[in-house]
Formats: sequence, structure tokens, C-alpha cells
Amino acid sequence: MTQKHKVVVIGSGNWGSTIGKILAENTREHSDIFEEDVSMWVFEEDVDVPDDRTLREQLGDKPVKLTHAMNTTHQNVKYLPGIKLPDNLVANPNLQDTVRGATILVFNLPHQFMSKTLEQIKGNHLPYARAISGVDISGGTVKLYSELIMEKLGIYCGSLSGANIASEVAAENLCETTIGYDGPPMDYKQPDGSSRDNLIKVDKQRQSKSNPSQLALHPVPQTYPHVDSALLEKLFGRPYFIVQVVRDVSGVALGGALKNIVALAAGFVAGKGWGENTKAAVIRIGILEMVRFGCLWFPQSVDERTFTKESAGIADVIASTSAGRNFHSACHAVEQGVTVDEIEKKELGGQKLQGTSTTRAVFEFLKKQGQLEKFPLFVFVYDILEERTTMDALPDLLIKGSKVTA
Amino acid sequence: MTQKHKVVVIGSGNWGSTIGKILAENTREHSDIFEEDVSMWVFEEDVDVPDDRTLREQLGDKPVKLTHAMNTTHQNVKYLPGIKLPDNLVANPNLQDTVRGATILVFNLPHQFMSKTLEQIKGNHLPYARAISGVDISGGTVKLYSELIMEKLGIYCGSLSGANIASEVAAENLCETTIGYDGPPMDYKQPDGSSRDNLIKVDKQRQSKSNPSQLALHPVPQTYPHVDSALLEKLFGRPYFIVQVVRDVSGVALGGALKNIVALAAGFVAGKGWGENTKAAVIRIGILEMVRFGCLWFPQSVDERTFTKESAGIADVIASTSAGRNFHSACHAVEQGVTVDEIEKKELGGQKLQGTSTTRAVFEFLKKQGQLEKFPLFVFVYDILEERTTMDALPDLLIKGSKVTA
Repeated sequence: MTQKHKVVVIGSGNWGSTIGKILAENTREHSDIFEEDVSMWVFEEDVDVPDDRTLREQLGDKPVKLTHAMNTTHQNVKYLPGIKLPDNLVANPNLQDTVRGATILVFNLPHQFMSKTLEQIKGNHLPYARAISGVDISGGTVKLYSELIMEKLGIYCGSLSGANIASEVAAENLCETTIGYDGPPMDYKQPDGSSRDNLIKVDKQRQSKSNPSQLALHPVPQTYPHVDSALLEKLFGRPYFIVQVVRDVSGVALGGALKNIVALAAGFVAGKGWGENTKAAVIRIGILEMVRFGCLWFPQSVDERTFTKESAGIADVIASTSAGRNFHSACHAVEQGVTVDEIEKKELGGQKLQGTSTTRAVFEFLKKQGQLEKFPLFVFVYDILEERTTMDALPDLLIKGSKVTA
Repeated sequence: MTQKHKVVVIGSGNWGSTIGKILAENTREHSDIFEEDVSMWVFEEDVDVPDDRTLREQLGDKPVKLTHAMNTTHQNVKYLPGIKLPDNLVANPNLQDTVRGATILVFNLPHQFMSKTLEQIKGNHLPYARAISGVDISGGTVKLYSELIMEKLGIYCGSLSGANIASEVAAENLCETTIGYDGPPMDYKQPDGSSRDNLIKVDKQRQSKSNPSQLALHPVPQTYPHVDSALLEKLFGRPYFIVQVVRDVSGVALGGALKNIVALAAGFVAGKGWGENTKAAVIRIGILEMVRFGCLWFPQSVDERTFTKESAGIADVIASTSAGRNFHSACHAVEQGVTVDEIEKKELGGQKLQGTSTTRAVFEFLKKQGQLEKFPLFVFVYDILEERTTMDALPDLLIKGSKVTA
């Protein structure tokens, strides 16, 4: 193993910057297997310099390019202010340049940028690269990021998700995360000794016939260290960020996306002031629907324990139903008697919550599948968002949700 | 079926009074199968009359007997003030008189009264009565209430537990609960047509050789409606109190007891101000240890889904790690830099938390079994209670807890 892995980060929001910090800390610590510098693709923009003496001494007080600010001050002054980033985390405004030669790509993009970014990467990346992606369900299509990346770039992609509120991870408060990774062996030898492409099933049991059922993956040269769970723990694990690697890529991705629907539901209950028992009941039924959705969508590959026992499931649900934007926005909407859409406009400057787009995508999917009646809570959240029902319907819904067993 | 079930409640604290309210509402609603009056055994004491005009008009302003106050005002003025109780819930200071002729006994006693109360009931109850008990682990012996009742009274006993903070249930805020009941058929006919006692395994795989492995149960006369899950739903379910009946009696009881250890752990984290991610990680590991403890203790009868999917498991853990006395006391202890024992003295007037006695009982049990290393979180909580460690040990513990898989 003579070659080192080159690790890059695509996306530089608050979570992208946080995970970039972790990666750069680890590539420095394990510089025997990783190149020390971690490039981070930054969507270039002009940013105001915060009113901070040290920053203004370094940057002046006129707006500057975000990459310049990051590479000068080693802070993401716009999206993760106040957190010192390692100086081997290097901001790069050029996407193609960032991914070139990288063997491990770590994605953290909001869904509106996903497709376009993948188009721009295509052809500029190593054909045998491996990816790990943050999670979301892209609006309308109900497609996991990991699937999208595999299909568009032809490279294997795992998922990372967990009870990981970014600001707390950035402050190095202790937490856990889950990585779903079930990648093919690095280099597969035919019985005759020749190498060939690894074949991997991308989506074992998806309903849509248009999806490819297999993807030919390029083998990674054996000169690189194996990308396996031990290597992923070295790359992502920190004393304050405990990593569990599981094989259930879809479960990890789904957990991270669906928990936002449950967070909205819990926020509605909190907004009504109905107390901890009711909130706990809604969360419990939410977890059952997450399990049910996973089994419906990926019957062959999803492991229900990802939802009930891993950080990407239960722990993330717990954290997201106590804090976070989805929970608080839903709570404020009910308290103020307005829609969540109005709260997005009023309190989030028009930024969209993950929970609202996920709820709508999941509803459309379930409707097409004729499965709405098995997901009373998900449907209830949709109905509240669309003003098709009121909170008064919750008791009936809970009785219904409590009785669905299939 | 010509005879009606006579339902009684043993214990009249805030939860006993709350469940008594529910039972009396239901016996009135289903007076075809239950006698309408529900007797509640009340440990008699003199109570001050609250400073409330209506109450003082009825009771005067001198101390009165608690049973007199309850039967006059239909309020438990001491333990559940402000909640109107149905007038067919009748307080009775005489234990033997309360249980006489009852076919369904509902227990809600703190553990220090349990053994003595059972001694006093013995011989005064119907031999074919059935019981449902609230949950706790009696100190030192690590024995479930349901077991204790079965052994001492020779009657079948199920468990009831869930995300049921008493004040919220009493206020009729929506919630769920879980009843564990796997009782024998009401009357078992031999092939020759004769009746015989039902045999039931009390504790299928308990370690202690001194425990009886089978208990002869008296058949309930066929003149009574069957005590089955449908009947239990009628007796315990309300529009605001949704009941799930499962067969896993031990899991329901254990969930209700062990969640208090997790609540202490979550309180310690909150007291340190470590945020939602850390708290969620601790809760996740706590649930895994609950599952592990159940499988160790009742390998044949516990169903891990009780912990991961039922109200008596996950939902109760969620509610108890957000609110409740164990959580808050642990939080205050860490904030103030004192022991939980000191908080009990200072803030609870010397009342003991369920969590502290459960933690100690579980620790002693695990130590005897040589299983401490599989329960790093439970041991950590014990060590904090006993001042054998500090919160600084949490990161290491979490890494350890995260890696235990067996």
C-alpha cells in the first residue's frame, strides 16, 4: 500500500464545515494512510466580515470572498462562525479541481444543489473513488442521496447520519454517529487472476422499473489501503465523535430523512402544550412508521434495528424532537396559529426546512403506492402542512397509529 | 356469563388515584361486565384541608381522614389535588375489606409497602382473582412486582407501564400505555370434562433455584367474562389513554423499572449542559442495556421489541429523560455539585427516587452474575451515585457502551 487516500469535502455549510474539521483532524493524525490536506469545495460568495477585531485585522472590514476568508482565518465566518478549523482544511471554489484525484468524496449538500453539482463533477472524478454522503430525500423523486450519487457518478456511496446537531459537534460535545457502508471489496480478482469491475446492487427492491438494478464499479487499485469499516472509523471517528459502521446504507439515509417528519409532529404537539406523554406517543408511532417505510421501500436491504437501535435512528429522532429547526418551526407554527410555510418565510428568511419537503415527497410516494392508510402519522403531518386538518384530529390519529401493526 | 367482575385498586398515591379514576370511568361505561363501584384501598392518614373555599365548605378547616376527604369531595386532596374523581371510586381504609370478593386487583404501591401489604391481603382474596401491577424492582432482591404478587398470593399478575406521567394522565392529556398480560385461560377443561388448576410458568429462566418454576392457578369460574386483552382494553382504555396489550409481562415491568436508571444518566448529562447530541447518545446506549438486561434475565420470555417499540419501552424512556423526578434530581445534583442522595433530602423531603434504588439493585445483581462489563452505562450511574467516579468518565464510558454488542 504505497498510495495515500485523498479525501475531499463537497459542500461547506455548517455541517459540511463541521465534518471537514473532523476529517482534517484525522488525516493529520493518520497521515500514513491519508494525504494530510483536505480540500473542501465552497460555493463562492461575498461575505461580510463579522464585527470581530481579530477577523477584521486579517480581512479588513469590506466584504470578501468566502474561500479567502476561510483560508486566511481558518473559520467559516458565514456558516460556522467562532469555530477554529484545522489549517489543513483548504477551501476551494473550483469544484472540478477539488474532486480531481480524490479517492474519498464526502458529500454535504442541500438537495436543491445536488443534481447540478453531480453534473459538474461527472467525468472529473476518479472512476474508482468511493463516497460518503449526508442524507436527505430529494424532493419529488423520493430518492436517497446515496442512490443518486451512485447512479450519476457511477461510484459507490455510503451514508452518514446520527444525532449530530452541527453546532454541538463543532463545539466538540460528545456524540455518536452511524455510517452505512457496504461497499464492494477494493479489488476483485477473477479466478484466472485478472481484475474486473465490481458489481453491486444499487437498489435491490425498488418499485420503479426504470432504476438500474446493478452498477458496475471500478475496482480500486490495491496500492491503496482498503476502504472498510476500520478505515472509516479512522477517518470519521474522533474522541468526541463516536462512529458505528453498519451495512444498512438505506436505513441510515432513510433514518436521517424521515426523522424530520417526526420532528415536525413532535413540534406540533409541543406547540399545543400537550406535555411529554403525548409527545412520547407521537415519537413512538413515528419510529414505527419509519420502520414500516423502510421495509416497504427496501424490503431486502433495510434492517429495522437501524431505526430502533442506532444513532441514525432512535438517537437522531430523540435529539431532533427536542431541538433543531424542524421541531421549533412546527412548534411556533401551532403556537402562532400559522402554517409552517409562513414560519419558514418569517423566521428562516425563506430557507426551506428539510422536514416539509421530505413530508411532501413521502406523501406523494405513499399515495402512488396506495399505502397511505399504513402511515397515519406521516399523513397527518402532511395534512397539517397543507391545512387539510387541524390538531384536533390527533387523538383519532394516535388511536389509528397505535393499531397499525403490519 | 352472569357474574360481573369486581375491580379494586390497591394504593392511592398520585398514580393509584389516576388509574382509579380511569377504572371507575370504565366500570361505569361497561357496567354490563363490571360492577360499577371500584373500591380503592387508601393508607389512612390525617390530612390538612387545602386552602380552597369549596373544599373547606365540605370538610371544614381542621385535619381530616384522607378516606373521608376523598369520599366527601371526590378528590385526593393530598396526592392528586385539583382532579375530580368519579363518585363510584370509593376510598376504603380497610385492606382486607377492599380485596374481599374482588376478581381483578390493580396494584400501585411503592416498594417499601409491597411485601407487608401482600402479607395482609393473603387469605382474604379470591383464589382465582387476576392482578395487574404497576412496576418497580423491589430493592435488593431484583424481583418484579408481578412475580412477587404471583408468588405471595398465588394469583396471576400482569404489568402496566408506559409514558404516563401521572399529572398529565389525570388531566386527560392524550397518551399510550402498555399492558403485559399472558394469563392462562379462565377455565381449563380436562379431556374428561373436569376442571383443573391452570399451571403457569412464573419465571421461566430465572437464575435462582429457589424460585418455583410453576404455579398452580385456580381457574376462574366460567360464569365471569374472560379476562383477555379485549376485556383489559375495556377496563383500562380511555379516549385519552390508549392501551396496547402485549404478552411480554416481564419486558413491560422491566422497562418501567430500568428506564429510571436511564433517566438519571440523562439528567447527569443535562446537568453538565452537554446538549442534545450527548443526551441522545446516552439514551440510546441506555435502551441497548435495557434490551441486554432483559435478555440476560428472562432469556425465554422477554421480547426486545417491548423496549424498542412499545410505550412501556422507548416512549417511557423518552418522557422520563425529558421530565420527571429522576431526571430533574440527577440534573440538579450535577448542577449543584452534590450527590443525588443529598437532592433527595433537600428537594424531595427524604422521599427516595425509584431510580436510585433500582440502580443499586441492578448493580448488585449484575455483580453477582459477573456481568458488569456488559452494562457500562448502568455501572456508570451506580458509580456516580456512590461517588466512585465523576462525569469526566462519560466519554470513555460512551465509547465502551457503543462497542458492547453482545
